[in-house]
Amino acid sequence: MLQIIRPTLLLHRPTCEANIRKMVNKAEEQKVQLIPHFKTHQSATVGDWFKAAGVKAITVTSVKMANYFSKNGWKDITIAFPVNILDAEQIDELAARVDLKIFINSKEAANSLKEQLKHPVKFYIEIDVGDHRSGVDPDDPDIISEILRLSRNSNLHFEGFYTHAGHTYNAASPEEVEQIAGAFLKKFRSLKAEFSEEYPNLKIAMGDTPSCSILKELEGIDSIHPGNFVYYDLVQYGIGSNNLEEIAICLAVPVVAVHPERQEVIVHSGWVHQGKDSIADANGNTHYGFVVKLTADKWSAPIGKVIKLSQEHGVLHLPKERIENIQVGDVLGILPVHACATAHMMGKLFTTEGEKIQMMPRNPEISGS
Amino acid sequence: MLQIIRPTLLLHRPTCEANIRKMVNKAEEQKVQLIPHFKTHQSATVGDWFKAAGVKAITVTSVKMANYFSKNGWKDITIAFPVNILDAEQIDELAARVDLKIFINSKEAANSLKEQLKHPVKFYIEIDVGDHRSGVDPDDPDIISEILRLSRNSNLHFEGFYTHAGHTYNAASPEEVEQIAGAFLKKFRSLKAEFSEEYPNLKIAMGDTPSCSILKELEGIDSIHPGNFVYYDLVQYGIGSNNLEEIAICLAVPVVAVHPERQEVIVHSGWVHQGKDSIADANGNTHYGFVVKLTADKWSAPIGKVIKLSQEHGVLHLPKERIENIQVGDVLGILPVHACATAHMMGKLFTTEGEKIQMMPRNPEISGS
Repeated sequence: MLQIIRPTLLLHRPTCEANIRKMVNKAEEQKVQLIPHFKTHQSATVGDWFKAAGVKAITVTSVKMANYFSKNGWKDITIAFPVNILDAEQIDELAARVDLKIFINSKEAANSLKEQLKHPVKFYIEIDVGDHRSGVDPDDPDIISEILRLSRNSNLHFEGFYTHAGHTYNAASPEEVEQIAGAFLKKFRSLKAEFSEEYPNLKIAMGDTPSCSILKELEGIDSIHPGNFVYYDLVQYGIGSNNLEEIAICLAVPVVAVHPERQEVIVHSGWVHQGKDSIADANGNTHYGFVVKLTADKWSAPIGKVIKLSQEHGVLHLPKERIENIQVGDVLGILPVHACATAHMMGKLFTTEGEKIQMMPRNPEISGS
Repeated sequence: MLQIIRPTLLLHRPTCEANIRKMVNKAEEQKVQLIPHFKTHQSATVGDWFKAAGVKAITVTSVKMANYFSKNGWKDITIAFPVNILDAEQIDELAARVDLKIFINSKEAANSLKEQLKHPVKFYIEIDVGDHRSGVDPDDPDIISEILRLSRNSNLHFEGFYTHAGHTYNAASPEEVEQIAGAFLKKFRSLKAEFSEEYPNLKIAMGDTPSCSILKELEGIDSIHPGNFVYYDLVQYGIGSNNLEEIAICLAVPVVAVHPERQEVIVHSGWVHQGKDSIADANGNTHYGFVVKLTADKWSAPIGKVIKLSQEHGVLHLPKERIENIQVGDVLGILPVHACATAHMMGKLFTTEGEKIQMMPRNPEISGS
């Protein structure tokens, strides 16, 4: 058993493995390939649990992350981010070692990379299905045809269309997710019909955790690339992707002050530990996580909320009868609003049994690194 | 000159050194000691610039940070955080090497530490002057007297009262900061009067950057502990602590897509690079930073805003005439909403001249590390 002295991220391995299994089973039932996004856990160890469940290909969010997982045995990697042409050298170096897929969303990127790449690279064209973050407009087939034309007779090989329907994150219920997804799946299927004569092997790939968790049928989709489901969190819980028991990580934090007169507890847990994501509860009050008690093998149901957060301080609000039992030096738990952020901020974690789980070194890729 | 291929945090050293000099001069004029908070820059190199300006004592936010700076030559360190009694062993180890000051805000902490510490440690009692984050109620002198009583004849030595008036961050103008500060300075002076007979050397310490930047007189204060002013940012600019030219850091980011039809540019810059802080502009629209152009020796005035942010994507909104000149593969700059967060997320930086500046390794302190 781990002795907790400082903010420590705990992982309940049985919950995490059940989340993995459930998504693997769903992909099998729906006859789609699961190519999980590893940006949430960023961990070679957790990656191995996916491998044990039969997963063969992965998705990442940066060249740096692709490098990290390639060095941990992964040979089929999709970088789900509009390619940065300034980084062509490292992409080419990666392509020499792995079956690499990137996103090409513009003529400029196609033109630049066909000149720079010495190794074959597959590419998706990312489709903007309404989130308006990145991707090309599916109603503008000219740009798609132009990218395909430019890539011919080069090291760039068309893999298919990819979308991250980020606007499902605005949904307040599973029904709303199904509604949003219905619209973009229709667009996707017509795009496939339009281009599959010329590209009979083209793939249709879809990214977001709410859709992948909630949709009951995925007809016409070839691969799903969800990430967050490995841990889940309160944002996904709010959408209806998971129940509270499926949240697999919990930040253990020491109590440094108790203020019964205002029902508040101060813990060592700031945005450097949790990340700064907040969420509104049913009454519209913003909070930064649910408070739980640590138990012998996991943690309790929520007993309060994190109501304020600064660099290292967290302020918890708890019911009167709970406050009475809490003392300076106790350790409480926090269920994350956004698991990707909390895992990224902490940079490593421990199973509730005390086993240390390494993650990718956290410094983001940077010139000169 | 630095060749930028990935998100890279730039520091304009002349601006940073001018910010340091200005605060050093203000402290000298006001006859208070400047004990700068190093949580913003977390850098031994930037720390050396303070040393060169005559600074002898520093403030940090965690035991880990105290350790890092003690190993970089600092001998007088205040940990401005309610002490975590579970961490007594490492505090004691630090106290053997440096003139250490901690916060004791409860009887429990005083009781626990007087038993555990083998080396003398000075302590402040943190006073809650209205921010309600941490600290004791100044109108409840019983708790103060009780902490003082418990610490007698132990390794705990009373240094004075400290406050971080975090509620000045809610001010919308310098006048409002002065109003808030006026109230807490009055409380502070009466507290000093009350306890100075028994403790003639007691110090009054004050922490926040808005007060330290804006207040014209600091009568009755012994030391100021601001941190953010070393870089400044858009939050401080909104309060009136600084002008835009005084912001010393800028995140250089590669352009990966341009969408002229909606006046948007996609850059490789997500919350893993910037942090997730947002701010509302005059019209109440939330944004995640000002966009600037990089110039030969610094950067331009703002030309747009970051309107959306995910793990690695940033979406910029720019005027039409600006968009026309921007291409995939360009590098733009982002002025941070919250400099502490951006510096922490990036974990290292470069001067605009290309000199690499190391920071404390970023993983927060964690059990077992």
